[in-house]
Amino acid sequence: MDANSQHQNHWKLTVAYDGTDFCGWQVQPGRATVQGTLADAIERVTGERVLPQGSGRTDAGVHARGQVASFALDAAIPAASFLRAVNRRLPEAIRVLRAEAASPEFHARHSARAKTYEYIICRSEICPPWVSRFAWALNWPLDPQAMQAAAQMVVGRHDFTSFAASDPDLSTRRAAGEACEAGREDNTRTIFESQWRAEGDLLIYRVRGNGFLHHMVRNLVGTFVDAGRGRIAPDEMRRILDAGFRGAAGATAPARGLFLDSVEY
Amino acid sequence: MDANSQHQNHWKLTVAYDGTDFCGWQVQPGRATVQGTLADAIERVTGERVLPQGSGRTDAGVHARGQVASFALDAAIPAASFLRAVNRRLPEAIRVLRAEAASPEFHARHSARAKTYEYIICRSEICPPWVSRFAWALNWPLDPQAMQAAAQMVVGRHDFTSFAASDPDLSTRRAAGEACEAGREDNTRTIFESQWRAEGDLLIYRVRGNGFLHHMVRNLVGTFVDAGRGRIAPDEMRRILDAGFRGAAGATAPARGLFLDSVEY
Repeated sequence: MDANSQHQNHWKLTVAYDGTDFCGWQVQPGRATVQGTLADAIERVTGERVLPQGSGRTDAGVHARGQVASFALDAAIPAASFLRAVNRRLPEAIRVLRAEAASPEFHARHSARAKTYEYIICRSEICPPWVSRFAWALNWPLDPQAMQAAAQMVVGRHDFTSFAASDPDLSTRRAAGEACEAGREDNTRTIFESQWRAEGDLLIYRVRGNGFLHHMVRNLVGTFVDAGRGRIAPDEMRRILDAGFRGAAGATAPARGLFLDSVEY
Repeated sequence: MDANSQHQNHWKLTVAYDGTDFCGWQVQPGRATVQGTLADAIERVTGERVLPQGSGRTDAGVHARGQVASFALDAAIPAASFLRAVNRRLPEAIRVLRAEAASPEFHARHSARAKTYEYIICRSEICPPWVSRFAWALNWPLDPQAMQAAAQMVVGRHDFTSFAASDPDLSTRRAAGEACEAGREDNTRTIFESQWRAEGDLLIYRVRGNGFLHHMVRNLVGTFVDAGRGRIAPDEMRRILDAGFRGAAGATAPARGLFLDSVEY
């Protein structure tokens, strides 16, 4: 909290986006990102340049139903007016769903206690054009019961190193505090809920946990699909978790099927 | 039917598309159109350049769940292989849902006996990014019963001149036989079904008729919305039909909410 933060107005925004046409959440020079586009809209409304802090980064092509962003402004603006004005200046692919006053201590990433993601697989023989931006089109035969059995095995507290991205910019992420606790990497996370459900031609995976490593949900989904195709038995999830080695798990599922559903504080 | 059409293989394709990023169905030099993109994909599969004839044009931004296209090829290709090969070469925004052999007499436009369109209005206060490509976001208060009462009044055989586009290229369309019978313009069409229904935050209009004038569904929807807002009474639809004058009806609803649902033969 900097010296003048008491005089500032702290905000919590809940944001939905279609990530297809963005190079992910995090601002990058010369590229369309969700964070950068949101910062531009806020600047056009307020004249103030801020960098909204997200609850976490989403990769290029990943969507959000309830990303949360925090920042502070000098100007005092009624929440309803701010919401309308920012939405008017955002492209339709990004919508602010809620704008709320937050305490000066609130930080979208540091204050997060749990997150929920969903991942959509479209099983139609031909994936309709209005679904393909938001799903992995997979018309291999899949056994949903095997996928559910595999999904159940990650519930609880585990070291998810086998499902973490072998990430070229991990040191940057550590510096940003994302995968770092007390100076050493800790890939232990607790998963509260991990479930597949069917909705028509869609198979939807829902996972709620106290935190997620980079690519973790997509790597889990790729491995559950291996179980669904009979390439691995569902209880091999235990061996894969124990291996602590990215190569033990399945492929990374495509970004387009992933939604950051909600963040709890 | 030209002289060698008996030696050709006649096709009927059923096509779905997200029209957002296309300048409509009809091929235009230097612009991305559905017809042109489909022709390119067929050429890449077969080496033959054909112009698939649609059941009708759809405007820029209009979508289709079941547009139908007809054309003839010299090559003989099994339908299942043709379907897979064409879809592999199409962008995901266009999908061929079915490929069937057709008789030499079949023509997607001339043989059509009825068409069904749907129009989607999103009533959420904030239209989600995964809906906004496919709906008119309208959060004015609307009375769905008044909209349904107005919609019922167009069922039957009517002159729909009041709902026809005041179209700068009407003469071209007449030359193409679209709004022309026996040399004189005939704007009489028969509507078999005309209904609004609610699905969550969506209001969906479904209309089935023996034919539709250019912009007719969008002009009907714009007028039904006037009824839903209380700007006109539902039974004023009769007066508007009788006027035979475009200015009597409401505004043209945006293209993005319109789907060509299916064509009957």
